[in-house]
Amino acid sequence: MHPIEVLISKADTAINQEDFDTLLDFYSDDAVLVIKPGMNAVGKEQIKKAFEAIAIYFEHSLDVKQAGMALLETGDTALVLATTVVSAKSLAATERKATYVFKKDKDNQWVCAIDNSYGHDLLKADA
Amino acid sequence: MHPIEVLISKADTAINQEDFDTLLDFYSDDAVLVIKPGMNAVGKEQIKKAFEAIAIYFEHSLDVKQAGMALLETGDTALVLATTVVSAKSLAATERKATYVFKKDKDNQWVCAIDNSYGHDLLKADA
Repeated sequence: MHPIEVLISKADTAINQEDFDTLLDFYSDDAVLVIKPGMNAVGKEQIKKAFEAIAIYFEHSLDVKQAGMALLETGDTALVLATTVVSAKSLAATERKATYVFKKDKDNQWVCAIDNSYGHDLLKADA
Repeated sequence: MHPIEVLISKADTAINQEDFDTLLDFYSDDAVLVIKPGMNAVGKEQIKKAFEAIAIYFEHSLDVKQAGMALLETGDTALVLATTVVSAKSLAATERKATYVFKKDKDNQWVCAIDNSYGHDLLKADA
Protein backbone atom coordinates (compact mmCIF):
# COMPACT_ATOMS: atom_id res chain seq x y z
CA MET A 1 0.00 0.00 0.00
CA HIS A 2 1.12 3.55 -0.76
CA PRO A 3 1.75 5.62 2.43
CA ILE A 4 -1.14 7.89 1.41
CA GLU A 5 -3.53 4.93 1.18
CA VAL A 6 -2.53 3.99 4.72
CA LEU A 7 -3.20 7.55 5.89
CA ILE A 8 -6.64 7.61 4.25
CA SER A 9 -7.54 4.29 5.84
CA LYS A 10 -6.48 5.60 9.27
CA ALA A 11 -8.38 8.85 8.69
CA ASP A 12 -11.54 6.92 7.81
CA THR A 13 -11.21 4.93 11.05
CA ALA A 14 -10.74 8.18 12.99
CA ILE A 15 -13.88 9.66 11.40
CA ASN A 16 -15.92 6.54 12.12
CA GLN A 17 -14.70 6.49 15.74
CA GLU A 18 -15.17 10.27 16.08
CA ASP A 19 -11.53 10.54 17.13
CA PHE A 20 -11.14 14.05 15.74
CA ASP A 21 -7.85 14.88 17.45
CA THR A 22 -6.22 11.96 15.64
CA LEU A 23 -8.06 12.93 12.46
CA LEU A 24 -6.60 16.45 12.48
CA ASP A 25 -3.06 15.03 12.30
CA PHE A 26 -3.80 13.97 8.72
CA TYR A 27 -4.44 17.56 7.58
CA SER A 28 -2.06 20.41 6.77
CA ASP A 29 -2.46 23.52 8.91
CA ASP A 30 -4.11 25.35 6.01
CA ALA A 31 -6.15 22.42 4.70
CA VAL A 32 -9.48 22.97 2.94
CA LEU A 33 -12.36 20.56 3.60
CA VAL A 34 -15.47 20.73 1.44
CA ILE A 35 -18.33 20.31 3.93
CA LYS A 36 -20.84 20.45 1.11
CA PRO A 37 -20.64 22.04 -2.33
CA GLY A 38 -20.23 25.78 -1.79
CA MET A 39 -19.28 25.48 1.90
CA ASN A 40 -15.68 24.91 2.96
CA ALA A 41 -13.86 24.62 6.30
CA VAL A 42 -10.32 26.04 6.28
CA GLY A 43 -7.70 25.14 8.86
CA LYS A 44 -7.72 22.58 11.66
CA GLU A 45 -10.05 24.45 14.00
CA GLN A 46 -12.79 24.84 11.40
CA ILE A 47 -12.27 21.27 10.18
CA LYS A 48 -12.69 19.87 13.70
CA LYS A 49 -15.88 21.89 14.22
CA ALA A 50 -17.19 20.68 10.86
CA PHE A 51 -16.63 17.01 11.72
CA GLU A 52 -18.23 17.51 15.14
CA ALA A 53 -21.29 19.05 13.49
CA ILE A 54 -21.40 16.28 10.85
CA ALA A 55 -21.27 13.63 13.62
CA ILE A 56 -24.24 15.24 15.38
CA TYR A 57 -26.13 15.64 12.09
CA PHE A 58 -25.78 11.91 11.39
CA GLU A 59 -26.60 10.99 15.01
CA HIS A 60 -23.13 9.51 15.54
CA SER A 61 -23.69 6.81 12.93
CA LEU A 62 -21.54 8.06 10.05
CA ASP A 63 -19.50 5.42 8.29
CA VAL A 64 -16.92 6.31 5.64
CA LYS A 65 -14.94 3.83 3.59
CA GLN A 66 -13.07 3.68 0.28
CA ALA A 67 -14.23 1.32 -2.47
CA GLY A 68 -11.50 2.08 -4.99
CA MET A 69 -8.61 4.46 -5.43
CA ALA A 70 -6.18 5.79 -8.04
CA LEU A 71 -3.17 7.87 -7.09
CA LEU A 72 -1.04 10.25 -9.16
CA GLU A 73 2.13 11.43 -7.44
CA THR A 74 4.99 13.72 -8.34
CA GLY A 75 7.59 15.15 -6.01
CA ASP A 76 5.82 16.66 -3.02
CA THR A 77 2.31 16.60 -4.51
CA ALA A 78 -0.22 13.80 -4.96
CA LEU A 79 -3.77 13.58 -6.29
CA VAL A 80 -6.06 10.83 -5.06
CA LEU A 81 -9.20 9.88 -6.98
CA ALA A 82 -11.35 7.69 -4.79
CA THR A 83 -14.70 6.01 -4.77
CA THR A 84 -15.81 6.91 -1.26
CA VAL A 85 -18.85 5.24 0.28
CA VAL A 86 -20.68 7.22 2.94
CA SER A 87 -23.52 5.77 4.99
CA ALA A 88 -25.39 6.54 8.21
CA LYS A 89 -28.61 5.62 10.00
CA SER A 90 -30.50 8.19 7.92
CA LEU A 91 -28.43 7.78 4.74
CA ALA A 92 -28.33 4.70 2.52
CA ALA A 93 -24.82 3.89 1.30
CA THR A 94 -23.91 6.66 -1.15
CA GLU A 95 -20.95 6.55 -3.53
CA ARG A 96 -19.00 9.74 -4.02
CA LYS A 97 -16.24 10.35 -6.55
CA ALA A 98 -13.86 12.02 -4.14
CA THR A 99 -10.74 14.05 -4.93
CA TYR A 100 -8.01 14.54 -2.34
CA VAL A 101 -4.76 16.48 -2.73
CA PHE A 102 -1.83 15.59 -0.48
CA LYS A 103 1.45 17.43 -0.09
CA LYS A 104 4.58 16.77 1.90
CA ASP A 105 4.94 19.00 4.95
CA LYS A 106 8.18 20.43 6.33
CA ASP A 107 8.92 17.09 8.04
CA ASN A 108 8.52 15.29 4.68
CA GLN A 109 5.26 13.67 5.81
CA TRP A 110 2.23 13.48 3.52
CA VAL A 111 -0.67 15.60 4.77
CA CYS A 112 -4.04 16.29 3.17
CA ALA A 113 -4.24 19.87 1.84
CA ILE A 114 -7.55 19.61 -0.04
CA ASP A 115 -10.33 17.21 0.97
CA ASN A 116 -13.17 17.27 -1.53
CA SER A 117 -15.31 14.17 -1.16
CA TYR A 118 -17.83 15.65 -3.60
CA GLY A 119 -15.48 15.65 -6.61
CA HIS A 120 -17.07 17.23 -9.66
CA ASP A 121 -20.38 17.79 -7.88
CA LEU A 122 -18.85 21.19 -6.99
CA LEU A 123 -19.49 22.23 -10.57
CA LYS A 124 -23.22 21.65 -10.13
CA ALA A 125 -23.18 24.09 -7.20
CA ASP A 126 -21.60 26.69 -9.47
CA ALA A 127 -24.20 26.23 -12.17
CA MET B 1 -10.73 35.30 -13.35
CA HIS B 2 -8.39 33.40 -11.06
CA PRO B 3 -4.75 33.36 -12.30
CA ILE B 4 -5.03 29.59 -12.73
CA GLU B 5 -8.10 29.95 -14.96
CA VAL B 6 -6.08 32.33 -17.14
CA LEU B 7 -3.24 29.79 -17.33
CA ILE B 8 -5.61 26.97 -18.31
CA SER B 9 -7.17 29.13 -21.03
CA LYS B 10 -3.71 29.98 -22.41
CA ALA B 11 -2.65 26.31 -22.21
CA ASP B 12 -5.77 25.27 -24.17
CA THR B 13 -4.89 27.83 -26.86
CA ALA B 14 -1.31 26.50 -26.97
CA ILE B 15 -2.60 22.92 -27.38
CA ASN B 16 -5.03 23.92 -30.12
CA GLN B 17 -2.27 25.86 -31.96
CA GLU B 18 0.26 23.05 -31.34
CA ASP B 19 2.56 25.60 -29.71
CA PHE B 20 4.15 23.04 -27.41
CA ASP B 21 7.11 25.18 -26.32
CA THR B 22 4.66 27.69 -24.86
CA LEU B 23 2.55 24.86 -23.48
CA LEU B 24 5.48 23.42 -21.50
CA ASP B 25 5.83 26.69 -19.56
CA PHE B 26 2.58 25.84 -17.79
CA TYR B 27 3.97 22.61 -16.31
CA SER B 28 6.30 22.00 -13.37
CA ASP B 29 9.58 20.25 -14.21
CA ASP B 30 8.28 17.02 -12.64
CA ALA B 31 4.69 17.28 -13.88
CA VAL B 32 2.61 14.18 -14.56
CA LEU B 33 0.28 14.12 -17.58
CA VAL B 34 -2.23 11.29 -17.97
CA ILE B 35 -2.04 10.43 -21.68
CA LYS B 36 -4.74 7.82 -21.22
CA PRO B 37 -5.79 5.82 -18.15
CA GLY B 38 -2.81 3.69 -17.16
CA MET B 39 -0.28 5.63 -19.29
CA ASN B 40 1.45 8.74 -17.93
CA ALA B 41 4.09 11.14 -19.23
CA VAL B 42 6.43 12.51 -16.55
CA GLY B 43 8.54 15.64 -17.00
CA LYS B 44 8.58 18.23 -19.77
CA GLU B 45 10.39 16.11 -22.36
CA GLN B 46 7.89 13.24 -22.14
CA ILE B 47 4.96 15.66 -22.01
CA LYS B 48 6.10 17.40 -25.20
CA LYS B 49 6.49 14.06 -26.98
CA ALA B 50 3.03 13.02 -25.77
CA PHE B 51 1.38 16.16 -27.14
CA GLU B 52 3.24 15.78 -30.45
CA ALA B 53 1.98 12.20 -30.73
CA ILE B 54 -1.56 13.23 -29.77
CA ALA B 55 -1.50 15.97 -32.46
CA ILE B 56 -0.51 13.42 -35.10
CA TYR B 57 -3.09 10.91 -33.84
CA PHE B 58 -5.87 13.50 -34.23
CA GLU B 59 -4.50 14.67 -37.62
CA HIS B 60 -3.76 18.16 -36.25
CA SER B 61 -7.42 18.83 -35.55
CA LEU B 62 -7.56 18.53 -31.76
CA ASP B 63 -9.63 21.18 -30.00
CA VAL B 64 -9.68 21.47 -26.22
CA LYS B 65 -11.84 23.86 -24.24
CA GLN B 66 -13.29 24.21 -20.75
CA ALA B 67 -17.05 24.25 -20.24
CA GLY B 68 -17.06 24.76 -16.47
CA MET B 69 -14.62 24.93 -13.61
CA ALA B 70 -14.41 24.84 -9.81
CA LEU B 71 -11.23 25.69 -7.95
CA LEU B 72 -10.11 24.86 -4.42
CA GLU B 73 -6.97 26.67 -3.27
CA THR B 74 -4.89 26.73 -0.13
CA GLY B 75 -1.42 28.18 0.27
CA ASP B 76 0.77 26.86 -2.52
CA THR B 77 -1.60 24.11 -3.70
CA ALA B 78 -4.77 24.22 -5.82
CA LEU B 79 -7.17 21.63 -7.19
CA VAL B 80 -9.14 22.36 -10.34
CA LEU B 81 -12.24 20.35 -11.24
CA ALA B 82 -13.16 21.09 -14.83
CA THR B 83 -15.59 20.02 -17.48
CA THR B 84 -13.22 19.72 -20.41
CA VAL B 85 -14.57 19.32 -23.93
CA VAL B 86 -12.30 17.55 -26.40
CA SER B 87 -13.09 17.28 -30.09
CA ALA B 88 -11.28 16.48 -33.35
CA LYS B 89 -12.03 15.51 -36.94
CA SER B 90 -12.39 11.87 -35.87
CA LEU B 91 -13.86 12.58 -32.42
CA ALA B 92 -17.27 14.07 -31.71
CA ALA B 93 -17.18 16.59 -28.85
CA THR B 94 -16.55 14.56 -25.70
CA GLU B 95 -16.95 15.87 -22.16
CA ARG B 96 -14.36 14.83 -19.60
CA LYS B 97 -14.46 15.49 -15.86
CA ALA B 98 -10.86 16.63 -15.58
CA THR B 99 -8.79 17.10 -12.43
CA TYR B 100 -5.73 19.35 -12.40
CA VAL B 101 -3.39 20.06 -9.48
CA PHE B 102 -1.40 23.28 -9.51
CA LYS B 103 1.38 24.31 -7.15
CA LYS B 104 3.46 27.44 -6.76
CA ASP B 105 7.00 27.07 -8.06
CA LYS B 106 10.11 28.64 -6.55
CA ASP B 107 9.27 31.95 -8.30
CA ASN B 108 5.80 31.91 -6.71
CA GLN B 109 4.15 31.19 -10.07
CA TRP B 110 1.36 28.63 -10.43
CA VAL B 111 2.39 25.62 -12.51
CA CYS B 112 0.50 22.43 -13.30
CA ALA B 113 1.97 19.45 -11.40
CA ILE B 114 -0.73 16.87 -12.23
CA ASP B 115 -2.79 16.98 -15.44
CA ASN B 116 -5.46 14.30 -15.44
CA SER B 117 -8.14 15.11 -17.99
CA TYR B 118 -9.71 11.68 -17.38
CA GLY B 119 -10.68 12.35 -13.74
CA HIS B 120 -12.20 9.28 -12.11
CA ASP B 121 -12.02 7.24 -15.30
CA LEU B 122 -8.60 6.20 -13.97
CA LEU B 123 -10.43 3.99 -11.49
CA LYS B 124 -12.00 2.04 -14.34
CA ALA B 125 -8.51 1.29 -15.70
CA ASP B 126 -7.57 -0.10 -12.29
CA ALA B 127 -10.61 -2.34 -12.14
